[in-house]
Amino acid sequence: MNEIYSHIESHVDESIQQLFELVRQPSISTQKVGFDKAPGVMKELLERNGFDAEIVPVPNDGLPTVYGYMAASENPETAPTLLFYCHYDVQPVDPLDLWDTDPFEPTQVGDRLYGRGMSDDKGNIGARLAAIRAFIDERGGVPCNIKMFCEGEEESGSINLPDLIAERGDDFKADACIWEGGGRNLNDDPFMYLGLKGVLGVGLSVRMLSGDAHSSYAAILPSAAWRLLRALQTIKDEDENILIDGFYDGITEPSPEAIAAVEALPDDAPEWLDTFGVSGFVKGLDGEDLRKQLTFQPTANIAGLDSGYQDAGLKTVLPAEAKAKMDFRLVPEQRPYDIVEKLRKHLDKHGFEDVEIEVLGAVNPYRTDLNSPWVQLVAETAEEIYGRKPVMTPNMAGTGPMFDFGDTLGMPIATSGIDHPSHKIHAPNENITVEDFLLGAKHAALIIERFARDWG
Amino acid sequence: MNEIYSHIESHVDESIQQLFELVRQPSISTQKVGFDKAPGVMKELLERNGFDAEIVPVPNDGLPTVYGYMAASENPETAPTLLFYCHYDVQPVDPLDLWDTDPFEPTQVGDRLYGRGMSDDKGNIGARLAAIRAFIDERGGVPCNIKMFCEGEEESGSINLPDLIAERGDDFKADACIWEGGGRNLNDDPFMYLGLKGVLGVGLSVRMLSGDAHSSYAAILPSAAWRLLRALQTIKDEDENILIDGFYDGITEPSPEAIAAVEALPDDAPEWLDTFGVSGFVKGLDGEDLRKQLTFQPTANIAGLDSGYQDAGLKTVLPAEAKAKMDFRLVPEQRPYDIVEKLRKHLDKHGFEDVEIEVLGAVNPYRTDLNSPWVQLVAETAEEIYGRKPVMTPNMAGTGPMFDFGDTLGMPIATSGIDHPSHKIHAPNENITVEDFLLGAKHAALIIERFARDWG
Repeated sequence: MNEIYSHIESHVDESIQQLFELVRQPSISTQKVGFDKAPGVMKELLERNGFDAEIVPVPNDGLPTVYGYMAASENPETAPTLLFYCHYDVQPVDPLDLWDTDPFEPTQVGDRLYGRGMSDDKGNIGARLAAIRAFIDERGGVPCNIKMFCEGEEESGSINLPDLIAERGDDFKADACIWEGGGRNLNDDPFMYLGLKGVLGVGLSVRMLSGDAHSSYAAILPSAAWRLLRALQTIKDEDENILIDGFYDGITEPSPEAIAAVEALPDDAPEWLDTFGVSGFVKGLDGEDLRKQLTFQPTANIAGLDSGYQDAGLKTVLPAEAKAKMDFRLVPEQRPYDIVEKLRKHLDKHGFEDVEIEVLGAVNPYRTDLNSPWVQLVAETAEEIYGRKPVMTPNMAGTGPMFDFGDTLGMPIATSGIDHPSHKIHAPNENITVEDFLLGAKHAALIIERFARDWG
Repeated sequence: MNEIYSHIESHVDESIQQLFELVRQPSISTQKVGFDKAPGVMKELLERNGFDAEIVPVPNDGLPTVYGYMAASENPETAPTLLFYCHYDVQPVDPLDLWDTDPFEPTQVGDRLYGRGMSDDKGNIGARLAAIRAFIDERGGVPCNIKMFCEGEEESGSINLPDLIAERGDDFKADACIWEGGGRNLNDDPFMYLGLKGVLGVGLSVRMLSGDAHSSYAAILPSAAWRLLRALQTIKDEDENILIDGFYDGITEPSPEAIAAVEALPDDAPEWLDTFGVSGFVKGLDGEDLRKQLTFQPTANIAGLDSGYQDAGLKTVLPAEAKAKMDFRLVPEQRPYDIVEKLRKHLDKHGFEDVEIEVLGAVNPYRTDLNSPWVQLVAETAEEIYGRKPVMTPNMAGTGPMFDFGDTLGMPIATSGIDHPSHKIHAPNENITVEDFLLGAKHAALIIERFARDWG
C-alpha cells in the first residue's frame, strides 16, 4: 500500500483543488440554493476521477442524487462491491457575519481549509476520490467495484430518500457500505459510529388574524404568539421529559455492548463546556450519564422562533402569525411519521387544533450490530492508519439516512472519514485540516484494499 | 370662516404636494432611518408656511424634535397660544411585500393617498399647515400664537420626551393643546379622545450558549428558546390576567363619566371582526364589555419572537439565544418604570435572573377631564364641521406622550385631525382620503378661530 499512500500525499494539492471546486459551488438544500449547477459539478468531478456518473432524479421533485459507478479493474463480475454514502449538499451559511471568510470561496490558512461543506460532507467525498485516484494511477484501477452515492438532500432531512430507495434501491445495493463521515475525536483517537438517531423536523404555525394589528388591540384580539407559546409549552417539561402521549413507546434499554461502548468513550464534557460556553448540562448530568443522555435519549429541540417585529427598537404590533421550527431526534425504536401523528393528537388533545404542522424532515433512526465482520474490518484498518484502536459509538446524536441503506437495502455499514470536532460543521468557519484529509484518504484506500481481499 | 374654508379647498392640490414632500422623506425612528435629512425637511416645510422653526436637540442623543412658532398677527403679547402636538417620525414599513406602492413614493389612487406616515402623523401636520396658510393668505396672519411641536421619536416610544420637557418645557407651554390626531370613526361620526394609555416596551433576551450548536446536542445542552418560552409563560395566563406581582396595584374604577362615554360609543365589533379576520375576541367579550376591556384594561403583548433559524425548510440548530419584544399598555394609575421594576422582580422570583430586560419605550398614561371648557370648544367646533356631535373616548387604547404636556406642562388637551379607521396606520398601504384631509384642515382652522376669540 505504500505506493498508494505516497500517491495520496504527493497529489494532495491536486486533491485539495478538486475539493475547492466542490466547495466553491453553493448547494444549500434547505434553501434550494445552487442546484442549477451543483449536480453537474458533482457529476463532472466523479467522471474526471474515472466514474460512470449519472444525475439521478429524486421522487417528489427532490433535489437530485449524483451517482457514480466504477468497476473493479479485474473480474468485476465476481469482485465485491463497496458503496460510499456521501452528500454534496450543505447547511445554510447564516449567520454570515460570523464567518471570517466567504463560505463559498475556499480559503487555506496554514493547515486549515475553510468553507461551507469543507468537512460535512464535501471533504469526505474529496478524500475518497483521492484514494480512488491513487489506485487508478498506481495500479490501473480499483480492486473492487465502487459505488458513490452522493445525496443532495441530506442536510434538509433526506425526506425523499426512502422513495428513491424504493424506486431504484437495487441499483445502489452493495456488499458493504462506508458512511458519510468518520475520523478522529477530541483525543485524536479514531472513532466509528455505528448508527444515527432519526429525526422528525416540523414547522409549527398558528395564525390568529388576517394581518398584523396595532398592538393597542392586544387588549381584545387573540394573540398568535401567546398561543404558539402555550402550545409549545405542552410539548416538553422543565426536566426534559417530552410530554407527547406515546412518545417513548417501545423504547428498550440499549444492548449491554452499546452501553459498554458508551461507558468506554472518552469524557468530552470539558471540551463541550468550553466550546459552547456553558457551565453545565441539562439535569446537571456529567460523565457516563451525560454520554448516555446524548447517545440514547430522543430530543424535542426548538430550532427557530419567528413572530412579529424582530429588528432594532420597538414596533408596537400584534403579530397575526407565529411560527416555530422543531426537530425531534429519535432513537432506534421510534419512527418519525409515527411521532408526527402523536404530535398532532397531542396538540389536538390540548385544544391546539389550529396549530398547523408541516413536516420538514423525516429520517428513521438506525443502529448497526457492533459485532459484524465489516465493523471489525473497518476498525482494524483504522488502527493501522491512526496507530490507535478506534473508539466506538453505538449511534451518533446526529442523523443521517443510514436506515435506508442498512435496513431497507440490508448492507452492513461502518464509518470512516476526515472528521474532527474542531471542524465547526453546520457553523460559521467550517473547516478541515490537511492532516485529517490525508488520514481519511489513506483509511479509505486501505478499506478498499482489504475489502477486495476479504470479501472476494 | 367661508373664505378660509374656500382657500383650504381651492389649495388642496398644493397642500397635498406639501404632504407628499414630507411622506417622501423616510423617518423611521425605530430603525433610525432617514434622520440625516428628515428634520431639515420638516423644518423647511414649517418655514415655508410662515413659522420660525428650529431643530431642537433631544437629550440622550435622541432624534430631534422640530419646533415652529408663529405669532398672532395682532397683539401677540396678549393673544392666547395654541400648541399642536404632532410627530414627523413614522413606523417601520415591513412587511414590505404587502405594500401595493412604494411606502416612500406617495401615490394618489382616486380619492386615496398612499404612503408611510400619510395618516400617522404627517397627514395631520399637512392639514394643520393648510389651515394656517389659509389664515395667512386670506387674513394676513393667524389670530392666536401657534406652536407646532413635531416630535421625532413618537413611534419609538417618545423615550426622551420627558427629559426634553424637563429641559425646555417652558418654551413649549401654551394655553391649550390639540393632540396628534383625531377625525372620524367607522360611522363617520367625529370622535375625540381625551387620553391615551401609557406603554412600556421591552426587549427580553436570554443567551445560553456562546454560539449556535448542532441540534443533536439538544439532548445535553440548555436551550435558550425553551427557557425564554418558560419565562414568558409566567407573565400572563390564558385568561388574560397579567401575573406580575403588583401589576394592577392602584388601578381604580374609571369615573362614571368615563364609563358612560365608553357605553355610548358605537359598537365597532363587527368592523373589527372583519378587519382582523377573527371570529371573536378575548374571553368571548362583546358589546360594552369589549369596549371597556379595550379602553380600561392594560395589556401584555408579544410584539416579536426571534430565535434560531426562520427561513425555508429545516436547519437543525440549537439556537444560542432567544429574544422577545413585549409592549405593556398601561392605564392612568400605572407608570412604565414602576412596571419594569416589577417585571424584573417577577422574572427573578421565578428563577429567570438570566433573562435580560432592555427598556425600548416608556410613556406615562394620561386621561383628560371630560368636562373641561377646552374639550367643549373642540367638541362644538367638530359638530359644526362634521354636522354631528362627536363621540368621546376617555382614552384611546394606543399611546402617546400626552402626559408630558397635559400633566407636566399643565395644559388642557383635546383632539382633532384627519384620521379614519380605514387608513391602515402602522400597516402596509397606509393612506388617507382627500375628504378626511379637508375636514381635518377645516376643523383645525375653526379651532384656531374660536380659541383666539374665547381665550383672548
